[in-house]
Amino acid sequence: MPRQQRAVRSREAIVRAAAQVVDRYGLKAATLTRVSEAAGLSKGAVYFHFADKDALASALEQEAVRALDTLAAARGPGTGQALAALVATSRELARLLSEDVVVRAGFQVSCDRADGEVPLLRGRLVALLLRLLEDARRDRSLPPGVVAEDVVATVLALTVGVQILSRQPGAAREASQVVEHFWRAALPGLTAAGRREEPRPGDPAG
Amino acid sequence: MPRQQRAVRSREAIVRAAAQVVDRYGLKAATLTRVSEAAGLSKGAVYFHFADKDALASALEQEAVRALDTLAAARGPGTGQALAALVATSRELARLLSEDVVVRAGFQVSCDRADGEVPLLRGRLVALLLRLLEDARRDRSLPPGVVAEDVVATVLALTVGVQILSRQPGAAREASQVVEHFWRAALPGLTAAGRREEPRPGDPAG
Repeated sequence: MPRQQRAVRSREAIVRAAAQVVDRYGLKAATLTRVSEAAGLSKGAVYFHFADKDALASALEQEAVRALDTLAAARGPGTGQALAALVATSRELARLLSEDVVVRAGFQVSCDRADGEVPLLRGRLVALLLRLLEDARRDRSLPPGVVAEDVVATVLALTVGVQILSRQPGAAREASQVVEHFWRAALPGLTAAGRREEPRPGDPAG
Repeated sequence: MPRQQRAVRSREAIVRAAAQVVDRYGLKAATLTRVSEAAGLSKGAVYFHFADKDALASALEQEAVRALDTLAAARGPGTGQALAALVATSRELARLLSEDVVVRAGFQVSCDRADGEVPLLRGRLVALLLRLLEDARRDRSLPPGVVAEDVVATVLALTVGVQILSRQPGAAREASQVVEHFWRAALPGLTAAGRREEPRPGDPAG
């Protein structure tokens, strides 16, 4: 294997091992020694890629930021109703958080590092949800009676819950389902509110 | 102040200080030195009450267990519909988690100690929710079409989200509201499902 390719692979292995350690024990317990053991590499190899634990933590957080940005970019302008995009985004994020240990650990690192401030990833997620809800308000897929901030707060709490519950071995798959349950419970009400407030031409009451 | 009363007060001060430290920095960072500083007491005073950090962690977890048991006991047998009791219990727990730092830290400790197993408090909460849903099935306040495990999973994820989000200063009050939002969104659907499946004598369709 060429040297450069080997370096890329060992960096990936270190990031993944760090994610597993953080996911299980938290950022505080994730020493570079523990990470190098989990990756099956020497401490020298770890230091070759990451100057210190903080650099490794940043790498994990950035992986999760990138995943979130990819989700945000998936909806181009004018590709269907924004409320549907919001549902799809929250579903996909729940799936990622339950299935991808690197994304999950990135969110965990972001919280562990925030030290009382709003964690970077939580701030970005809230901004994304608010933007989608603004779009949904504009394209009228969100009824006027619904308070966007309430929907954002609920989806945020559910998403945080999914991330935390997915850390428990064997619970990940079940955890991601709660976002499904939530939308199944909430969407009929949202849609009904919309019909009540803005009857469409074909509706019996319109 | 009599010696015994003074001892009770200083124990309470230590537990509260420990809760604040755990809530802000997590269990790993909550050294007895940090706790004694936060309590404004000597390390000797802390050791008088707690042999080690583990004893202090147990005390926090037990405070939260007691709070949960009190919530569970609040509904005696035959005191109204079980679905209403479930809603009330989840609301009250969200309020406690957002307002009471000792209860919130108790949940946090329970997770930090679990080390991959199901945290003690999470297990007890799931058992309580399932029991209320069983009752609701029996007294027919929960429609036959609703899967109890789905409701439990969603309320659990929301509750975990509320606990984590409430750790952020200034966010506690808002966080507890998401349980309100959830029930407001989900209850009409649950109730409608009940009316569809089991019309009562007075109902127009019955």
